[in-house]
Order: sequence, then structure tokens, then C-alpha cells
Amino acid sequence: MEVVVDHLADERNKAQFDVDAMKIVWAGSQHDFNVTDRMSRLVASDPAFSKDGRTMLGRKELVKNTLRKAAHAWKRIIELRLSEEEANKLRNFVDEPAFTDLHWGMFIPAIKGQGTDEQQQKWLPLAFKMQIIGCYAQTELGHGSNVQGLETTATFDPLTDEFIIHSPTLTSSKWWPGGLGKVSTHAVVYARLLTDGQEHGVHGFIVQLRSLDDHSPLPGITVGDIGMKFGNGAYNTMDNGVLQFDHVRIPRNQMLMRVSQITREGKVTQSDVPRQLVYGTMVYVRQTIVADASCALSRAVCIATRYSAVRRQFGSQNGGPETQVIDYKTQQSRLFPLLATAYAYRFVGEWLKWLYTDVTQRLQANDFSTLPEAHACTAGLKSLTTSTTALFPDMASGAVTDSTFPLFAIQSEDGIEECRKLCGGHGYLCSSGLPELFAVYVPACTYEGDNVVLLLQILVDISVMKLTHPGNFNSIPLASSISMFLLQSNPKSFPGLLGVARFLMKTVSQLGSGKNPVGTTSYMGRIEHLMQCQCDVQRAEDWVKPSVILEAFEARACRMSVACARNISKLPSQEEGFTELSSDLAEAAVAHCQLIVVSKFIEKLQQDIPGKGVKEQLQLLCGIYALFLVHKYQGDFLSTGSITPKQASLVNDQLRSLYAQLRPNAISLVDAFNYTDHYLGSVLGRYDGNVYPNLYNEAWKDPLNDSVVPDGYHEYIYPMLKQQLRNARL
Amino acid sequence: MEVVVDHLADERNKAQFDVDAMKIVWAGSQHDFNVTDRMSRLVASDPAFSKDGRTMLGRKELVKNTLRKAAHAWKRIIELRLSEEEANKLRNFVDEPAFTDLHWGMFIPAIKGQGTDEQQQKWLPLAFKMQIIGCYAQTELGHGSNVQGLETTATFDPLTDEFIIHSPTLTSSKWWPGGLGKVSTHAVVYARLLTDGQEHGVHGFIVQLRSLDDHSPLPGITVGDIGMKFGNGAYNTMDNGVLQFDHVRIPRNQMLMRVSQITREGKVTQSDVPRQLVYGTMVYVRQTIVADASCALSRAVCIATRYSAVRRQFGSQNGGPETQVIDYKTQQSRLFPLLATAYAYRFVGEWLKWLYTDVTQRLQANDFSTLPEAHACTAGLKSLTTSTTALFPDMASGAVTDSTFPLFAIQSEDGIEECRKLCGGHGYLCSSGLPELFAVYVPACTYEGDNVVLLLQILVDISVMKLTHPGNFNSIPLASSISMFLLQSNPKSFPGLLGVARFLMKTVSQLGSGKNPVGTTSYMGRIEHLMQCQCDVQRAEDWVKPSVILEAFEARACRMSVACARNISKLPSQEEGFTELSSDLAEAAVAHCQLIVVSKFIEKLQQDIPGKGVKEQLQLLCGIYALFLVHKYQGDFLSTGSITPKQASLVNDQLRSLYAQLRPNAISLVDAFNYTDHYLGSVLGRYDGNVYPNLYNEAWKDPLNDSVVPDGYHEYIYPMLKQQLRNARL
Repeated sequence: MEVVVDHLADERNKAQFDVDAMKIVWAGSQHDFNVTDRMSRLVASDPAFSKDGRTMLGRKELVKNTLRKAAHAWKRIIELRLSEEEANKLRNFVDEPAFTDLHWGMFIPAIKGQGTDEQQQKWLPLAFKMQIIGCYAQTELGHGSNVQGLETTATFDPLTDEFIIHSPTLTSSKWWPGGLGKVSTHAVVYARLLTDGQEHGVHGFIVQLRSLDDHSPLPGITVGDIGMKFGNGAYNTMDNGVLQFDHVRIPRNQMLMRVSQITREGKVTQSDVPRQLVYGTMVYVRQTIVADASCALSRAVCIATRYSAVRRQFGSQNGGPETQVIDYKTQQSRLFPLLATAYAYRFVGEWLKWLYTDVTQRLQANDFSTLPEAHACTAGLKSLTTSTTALFPDMASGAVTDSTFPLFAIQSEDGIEECRKLCGGHGYLCSSGLPELFAVYVPACTYEGDNVVLLLQILVDISVMKLTHPGNFNSIPLASSISMFLLQSNPKSFPGLLGVARFLMKTVSQLGSGKNPVGTTSYMGRIEHLMQCQCDVQRAEDWVKPSVILEAFEARACRMSVACARNISKLPSQEEGFTELSSDLAEAAVAHCQLIVVSKFIEKLQQDIPGKGVKEQLQLLCGIYALFLVHKYQGDFLSTGSITPKQASLVNDQLRSLYAQLRPNAISLVDAFNYTDHYLGSVLGRYDGNVYPNLYNEAWKDPLNDSVVPDGYHEYIYPMLKQQLRNARL
Repeated sequence: MEVVVDHLADERNKAQFDVDAMKIVWAGSQHDFNVTDRMSRLVASDPAFSKDGRTMLGRKELVKNTLRKAAHAWKRIIELRLSEEEANKLRNFVDEPAFTDLHWGMFIPAIKGQGTDEQQQKWLPLAFKMQIIGCYAQTELGHGSNVQGLETTATFDPLTDEFIIHSPTLTSSKWWPGGLGKVSTHAVVYARLLTDGQEHGVHGFIVQLRSLDDHSPLPGITVGDIGMKFGNGAYNTMDNGVLQFDHVRIPRNQMLMRVSQITREGKVTQSDVPRQLVYGTMVYVRQTIVADASCALSRAVCIATRYSAVRRQFGSQNGGPETQVIDYKTQQSRLFPLLATAYAYRFVGEWLKWLYTDVTQRLQANDFSTLPEAHACTAGLKSLTTSTTALFPDMASGAVTDSTFPLFAIQSEDGIEECRKLCGGHGYLCSSGLPELFAVYVPACTYEGDNVVLLLQILVDISVMKLTHPGNFNSIPLASSISMFLLQSNPKSFPGLLGVARFLMKTVSQLGSGKNPVGTTSYMGRIEHLMQCQCDVQRAEDWVKPSVILEAFEARACRMSVACARNISKLPSQEEGFTELSSDLAEAAVAHCQLIVVSKFIEKLQQDIPGKGVKEQLQLLCGIYALFLVHKYQGDFLSTGSITPKQASLVNDQLRSLYAQLRPNAISLVDAFNYTDHYLGSVLGRYDGNVYPNLYNEAWKDPLNDSVVPDGYHEYIYPMLKQQLRNARL
């Protein structure tokens, strides 16, 4: 970091730990740090990737600028012969939503996951070289998460050996896919397969949309952009699109046929898909989404923390400088829990990554010995997943999200907004970077994440269904999520929603049957203890003990699940219980989910962590994260008797003490994220803390300042001042 | 409302109450309804006020368009000879932040409040005719809420009988004032008064900024726009400005001298300002801010409620239509409390309005008999005010807010965002109206509101200080807020922040001294009862009783205050206690604040309310608002023993029952807001519910759809597809 004057040097000198060692902890490993550091600097130092003026561009200029950056990034990737890992990181640090996200993140994986070997051999090389550009067209104007509701049809015509892709209604228009509006040449399109008057559920089809010669849409295809979205710059760099088919014909071999095939005669058949591989991919997706949440939140926290140390307000004594706002207890009590949350999410993401790697490696070596364990872990993950869905159904969505990990997504989203508020008025300026961070993150973690998951769900549903319901394949709705099958719930009930809560209820009901709960629900095996144990905290300091914290979270989660199970049993039917008590069930699922994050943070601390003072800082952060949750959700802890009112009050005392201990390390803890000024894109969050001159200089770049007298003065202001409006034509 | 097909007709037929009667209740009176209805239709039917395409305009075009609308509005106001009330409403329904907001809302009130009769006679007629356009220049780049920290100087030069206005540093640049950047000809500028080497605190000065002939900035003045802010359209229609003075001279009589005067010789003197009038103005401002909060929240709730009835997802039985998302319990448990909150804020605002009118009328008639009561009410209000400040200090602000009612503002802001989430993916589109509503509201209720309050605080501080601290005038910082004086707290402590908590602590400490707490704190007089009373709810239905709800809220608020007072008394000094326990104190203040809103809603229900079924609906809403708070803050209620865990669980049962009762009335309850489609500006919230065709049509208006092949295709996409990037210049 080139710094002439470091306005935050005093803050950095206060740190009580080795920042460089913490950077490795945050990155995950020395290797991860090296790659990340090199790619982020590569982007930051290249003027072609400058973010200047992005929020002031009109829509057309904005998109054109993004096309330029995407082409430049690809050029650099080729020139420097970057590895896949490096290329992904480079694209990430360009930090501008673009069609390439969907091409690499959705189109290619869809073909990899759902295409036959033959299909992969045909399409993947073209896609890898970007000789075609693809997107992922699933959601429709009238249909979001509910794949079952999709209306687009793919009718097999045995006469020509083709499918006819068609949009029968307005609401069947494909709507939202990124990269579709203006760029993609191809798409994976999801449509209901019809053959011989029979319906065979939703399948994926590779459809060419635009000419490879002049980019014009092919006959029968209407395609365009869906218009402005929330925020300045932000996701408006992306050409989210609308797409209608008027009887478009494609060859039969463009249906993705890894799991289902259609013969020349129009007969639909199924193949075996190795079920084990699916679990690994599911874990991968979860890990990505948590990693994104941690990343977005940590950027916002970094900006707010640095600016809180720069900004001074009130408290001047005898004409001296005012107090840094980071020194106010109220600021600390809002900011530091978010800092701790960023670290907590980082580590739960890391754990998921480990889980993925471990499972994948074993499976690739044909070692199925860990399958039961992997299955259990996946069940735990799935519960995390669907539980949070239950909490935040966002059912009205055009593209969002009875899917995965929205709890992390939404808590991070709220955390970003809280960071903006912590920066006061200046956080409202685009030059603060916070508005765009917020606006970009909102869909990044729900919309795109959702699609990835739905893609996998289709795959998983089919394969799992095949194994568990042979012969009954097509009668079960495709949209019913994984959990529905693994939990063997009633497939007619509300799919996806409240999955975890159901899983928890099932776990509770099976206790005592000799079946021991496993993975992340294994604490339920100690139900007798957890139902009656009493927290033995007597002084505030007692709250530092990880075992005390863990037991409190376990008792709360366990008792909330049991209470729900009891209430459900009082109602006429279980289904009615799930419907009536959905809010309570969702709260129980959240309690379970938070327990997992806390326990993974505590596990992290049991590892060997090198670097002077690093572990001590992480212990502080873990304590703040856990106790902040205890305070925020004290209603749960108290109503279940997991802690007493007195103990709840001691939590506050302990939190105040932890905040005071964290304070001198705050700036260095965000430095450990190792974010470049380019990546942060925030005047308030500058590494050197030189905020005011740069805010001032940014202001003058607004096009409104091109002229001293604004456009419209002569037509609208002058006649007003001169009382001549009466005759003006406005 | 012209409706061809009403897709929500079924919903409207379900209503169990007289919607027209509810409209009057919402508006406040038949008169208010009539004016509001007429003005909103006047704007909605005038093509010159169309909002089409606003979010797609570049900054310059956006501002020019706003200048046009402002001129057109002024033209119509003159042509139609509208009253002040009508003109205000008309401007409000144009619904686009503009310089006129500051001219009418800040510049003119500043002169009215702080100018002498002579100054008012000179400047007000010019301002009323808009022969000059003014803004309010207080906040600086480095200084927001802390008026004490302002750096701009006004040095009296006795040689020429002038002030020299000067910006000594970069951080002293005026920063944020709306209307300043490109439009205003004049400003009320706040600066430190220096005369004869002595400082006399911060005062207001009328300064001309631009030539009335050609709009060019006058010599010594550097002025411009501060650049893009959060959101599309939104506050970017406003020319928030930056302003620097290089020894600008103005005549002595342009210092606003109602409370302080400076003589020809440079001597500073004070006049008596009738203290009583100040209370009324304070009440007025509070009322405005609550009214704004209720208004913004109700718009978002209206959009989300209608769309939740239109949108269907999952739950299709035998190929029938899917379930309306409003029928899902999880959607109801998030949406209906917001609907209830909108009504609750409306009524507390109405109460404040009544209080203002009552006090003002009496004072104008020289009837000071109600002064003690008014004083008590003001104290209660102030506590509301500053308490919420304590909760949300936003101290890092460049312009925000140790001021007034941010609790309402922030809860409404969060409510708007929640409504956006309840609309799923489509809520992220600008055509949903929700992004702009959110982005506009964020500063509307904090930033502008803040300035109004600070204006008043200066006035009040001076006048009150004069009465309570004669002879000690200049030594007490101007920024110290009203509460500091009324509470007689230590003026060196953190000003403004935690004011209510201090007030509550004082109230607690004085109990038993024979002094009975009054106004909104009068419940504290029953402390003995409230400290030991037990909630006697035994069945869910018991929670319908207003007396039961009220006592639970009173017990909680009382016990939290007492607990804070006890904890403070354990610490070495009171000041240390306030600092250390600021978060706890803030929570106690919130409890007090929520009690006030609940109690005002309950009082409203004791009035005679005409219209079939209207009162029943309001009772439902009141119950939902109160019980939702009990659930959300159950940690408070449980830790204070105000209710038992069993009773907390019965709250949930009762809430579910209330949601079910509200459901058939939901659409009509938002219809009662009487908002035009123009005002809502949302495809999702259309009165006729015809969402999808209109979403589709809006999309094609994006400039990106002007051409089929996007700008940049030939430079960036074609070479990529054809593997020719290597030689491309990007």
C-alpha cells in the first residue's frame, strides 16, 4: 500500500497482535493469501480497471464500460496465462457484475452438471474459450423459486427430431437472467418437457439466442434488458434480461441429458447419477454463499471502522480535538459485533470449504467409507439451509429464494446498511462506496445464489428421487427441494420452506428411539441434560468460557425445538401445526443455525494459530459474536430458562469489557482483510485515512459541476426569479 | 381511480369495514382528506408531473427535469391561487426532492424564527414571491450535528460596518445543504461570530451567493454540487452543495438578530425572546418528522400488501392457481406488523399535531395557564426525542442526527427495506418504486429533519440559556441541546445524546421526593405498583385488553429505568455511569418511547370513531402493533419479570389469531391511505393489481433497449468471440 501520510498510523501502532499473521488466518492459508494479494494488486494497479465515475454513468455508458472491462480482464488472463483459480480471483477483484459471472458461474456448471459426456465435449471447449457466451435462463416474470410453476414449454417433435421451445403466456417470459439482456449468444433454458401430449417435468435445454456473426437475435426470439435496478452503478452494469420464444426449434441433442434422456421416438428414460458426488457440490455452493456474505460484510465493516477512527465529533476539551467517534460506547456496541460477525462467517465458510474438499477427495479416490459421515454433515448443512429459508421465505420473489443460506445473506445485507448508518451523512454519498456495496450485495447473495441452488436441486431431486422413489419419478414435483426427500416429508406440503424446522422436529420425535442424531444436530443426543441444565455463570467473567457459551446455545436451541414439537402435537394434524406455527418453527431453526456458527468459531480457536497475539484477538471476537447474540436474542434464552435475567445482565457487563479490549485493535483487525483501496472503492474507508480532501475532490467530478450555471437556468430559474413564469412554456 | 379491470376486486369485496370512513380517519379530518385528495389528483393528472423514466436519467438531465417541475408547480400555485396549505400539499405530491423544500422549509423559517421584525419585513416578501431563492447552510465537511464544532467565521469589521465571512480550512467548507449546489441565490449561513478578537458563538447570517442577473457566483464564493448520492433518481434530483467563502463581506444588518444583536461599535447584546413560543415550534417539528415517517412507511406497506395479494407462489393443487403469498403465515407475520406500525405512527403524529395546535392557540391568546402542562408535555416529547437519539447516535455524520425522533425514522427506514424484501426479486427493480422510496427516505427524515431541529435548538438554547443562566451566556456551548438545560445536566457532558435516559434517571431519583412525574412519564408515579405488579394473562385472548397491554409496557419501561438507575449508582460517578451504561440506558429509553406510541394508539380507540367496522379494524391494528413489540422485545419483558415465559408464548398465539382476522381487510386497509398510482410510483403497488404487463412494458423503456445490438459490441464482444482480443486496444 503506497502511503504518503498515514492518518491512521497511531491506530496501527496500538495493535496488540501480528497483523501479517492475521492476514494469513483471514485468507485461509499462505497460498490463498499470496494469490489473493497478487490478483488484487494486479487489478488495482491497472488503470483500465479504474472505478472512477462509475456511479455517474448513464445506463448505456455503464454497460459499455463493463463490456470493456470484461474484455480487458479476459485479455490479461490469456496474456498472463493465469490459472483457473487466479482468473476467478482477478474477475472477482474487477468488482463489477458482468455477463462473465453467469457464463463461468452458471452456464458452464449447468453443462458440467447436467450434460452428458458427449454434450460436455461439444460445448465446454467453446465456452472455455469464450467462442460462445452463455447465461442461465430459469426464472420467469410470474415464477421465481417455484420451478414447478415454470410455464415455458419444450415440445418434442418426432417428425423433425427437434424440440419446439415456446413462451405460451406473458408471465412465462424468462425474466432476470444476468447476461441475457444484451450479451449472451447461448442460454441454458429451463422448460417443461412435453412429448406425445404428456408432461415430463422441467429440464434444461441449450438454446442459441443470437447470431455469432452480427449478434442479432435469431428468428422467434425476443430478447432485451429488464431495466434499471436498485442503486447507482451497482447491478446496472449487468444486462439482466427478458426473453420470449415463439416456437423456436432446437435439435434433440440440446436437451441436457445426464439424468434424463429422450429417445429418437420421444420416449423419456433415466440414467443413474452417482448420488455421492451431489453432496460435494451442494457443500460447495453453501460455502460460496457464506464466503460472499463474509466478504461483503467485511468490506463494509472495514470502511465503517476506519472512518469511525478518522471522524471526530463532540467531546472537545478546552479547544482540543474532538473525540474519535469509535471511542463512543454506543458506536462500539453497534460496530464491533459486525466486525466479529465478519470473522465468524469467514470461519464457518472455511469449515464448509474443508468439508467440501474432504468429501470430494475421498469420493474421487472411490473411498466411500466417509459417506455416512458426509451424509450426516450434509443433513446438518441442509438444515442450516432450509431453516433460514423458513425464516426469510421471500416468497413473493421473481427470482428469490426459498433456497440456501439467506440468513447469512440477509444478516450481512443488514450489516452493510448498519455500517452505512454508522458513517452518518457521508455514508449516503456514492463516494463512500457503501450505497453501491449494499445495492450490489442484495441480489448477489440471493438472486444468483438462488439460481445456483435451484440448478443443483433439480439435479439432486431427480437423482435422489430416482433412488428413493423408483418408478414414481415424474409424479413428484421437481421443485420440491432436496430436503423434502431426505426428510421424507409429505411432498404435497409447502416445498423447501421450513425444511430445517421439519428436520429438527423429526430429530426430536426420534429421540429415544435409539437413533442418535449426528453431525450438527448431535447435541440433541444430550437432550435430557440440555432440557434441565442450568447455566452456572455468576460473574461477568464467567461468560468467557467457551463451554458455558456453547451449552447456553445448545440448551436454547434444544428447548425451542422441543417446545415447537409439543405445540404441534396439540394441534389436530401435523401439517396444520407446521402451517400455524411457522414463525415459531423458523425461530427455532435460527437458534439451531446460530449454534452452528458459534460452535465452528469455538472449534477454530482450538486449532494451533501462529502469530503473536492473534489467537487472543480471535477469542475476543468469538466472545463478542456469541455474547452479542445472547443479548440480541435474550428473549429466547430467558423464555427457555437457558439463562437467568441476572446472567443476561452479566452478558452486557462482559460485552462492555470485551469492546474495551478490542478497541485498540480495531483498525488492525480490518487491515487484516488486506483489501486494496481499489477493491473497497470508498473515500471513507481509505487505508491512509485521508478522507476530507478526497471527498472534496470527488465532488467536483460530478457532471453537474461541468458548468457553473446549470442546464435549465434560463428556462426555469430565471423566469421564476423575475416573475415571468406566467407566460413560460414548461 | 380509473380502473378498467380491477385484479384486486375480490380482495376489496372481502373488507369488513367502511373504507371511505377509514380514509377520513387516516387523513385526520374531512377537511384534511378533501385537500389531500384534491391536490394529489391535481398532480397525478398533470402530465408535466409524470415520473416516467426518472430513474434512468443522467444527473444533469435529472436535475434539469426537477427544475422544470418546480417551476411548473409554482406556476400552477399562482394560477390556481392556492392557499399555503394547498401549495404545501401540492409540492409534497410532486414527490421529488427539490430546492423549494429548503426554500420553504428551512430558509424562510430561519428568517421567521431568528430575524428581527425589520429583517423579516425586508426579506420575507422577496422569499414569498421567490424573487430570491434561499437555502440553509449549516453543516460542514468536517462537522455535522455538533454546531459547536463549526469552523466558518464571521468577523465584524467596525471600519466598514460589515462582517467578513470566511472558510479558514477545507473541513470548514459548507457541505450537504440542499438547493445550494446549483440553484440558491441566498443562504442563511451559520458561522462563529468574532468581534474585537473575541468569540461569541455560532449565529446565522443572510448571505447572497449568486448574481440575480446571470446566476454566476459572487466574488469570493466557490460553490458546487457534492455529487451522486444513494439511489436512482431519489435525492440526486437535489443539488446538495459545497460552499467556500474567501473573505466575503456582508452588511452588519444581515446577521439574524432576533435573539442577539451586534451594535455599530461591535458590542454583542441579547434581547428577550418569549420562551413559551419556542415550545410550540418544537412540538411542530416533532410532529412533522413522525408524520413523514408514517407517510413513507405506509407507501411501502401499500405496495407490498397489494403485490402480496397479486403474487402467487407454490401451493398449487391439481393444476389450480398457486397460493397468494399474502396467505402465508410467514408473510403475514412480517407484513401486518408494518401495516399496524404505519397506523400507530400516524396516530402519535396526530396527537403531536393536536398538542401543537392547542398550545399555540392558547399562547397566542396570551393564555399562559396551560404552560405548566405544556412544559410537561414538551418534557415528555423531548424525552422521546433525545432518547431515540441515544439509541441511534449516528455520530459520525456529516449531517445527521443527534436530533429528533430518529427512532421513528430508522424504524420506518427498516420497514421500507423489509417491504422491499417482501416483494422478492421484483422489489429490486426500480419500476417497483421501492428502491427510490428507500433512498429518498433515508435522508429525508434524518438529514433535513436534523437541520430543522438544529435551527430550533440554536434559538431555544439561546433563549432558554438566557433565562436560566443570565450573565453566563457565551460560555455555554451553543450545541448543547435544549434538554441539557431543561434537565440541568452537566453541560460539559456529551450533548444531546442520552438526553431522555438522563431525564428518566432524574425522574426515578426524584420519586418519593413529593414531586410527581407528569405528562408522558406520569406512569412513574405508580412505581410501587409497577415494580411488583404481575401480568394476569392466562389465555391468549386476555391479551386483547388494552389495560393489560398498557400495564405490561409500563412495568417494563419502569423496571428498566430503575435497573439502570441502580447500576449507575454502583459506579464511581454518575458521569461514568452514563458513559459505561449508554447502551442499557438507550434500551430503557426505547422502552419508554414505545410505551408512548402504544398508549396514544389506545387513547385514540377511546374516541368516538364513526364508520361501520372502522373501530374494530383499528383495535386489531393496535393489538398487532403492541403484541408484535412484546414479542420482538420479549427479552425486556421477561428479564424484568413484566410477563412470564408462558405469557410470552400466549402473545404468539394471540398474534396469529389477529393476523387471521386482519387478512381479509388488508387490501382495504392500505386503500384507506388514498394514495394515487402517481404518488406510489410503483408497478407492484398499482391500484388495479395489473402488475405483469406493466412490468414488462416498463422494461422496454430502458435506453439499453434502444438498439438490439448494444454499444460496445464491435469493440469488445465480437473480438472476444472471434479470439481476436490479443491485438485489440481496450
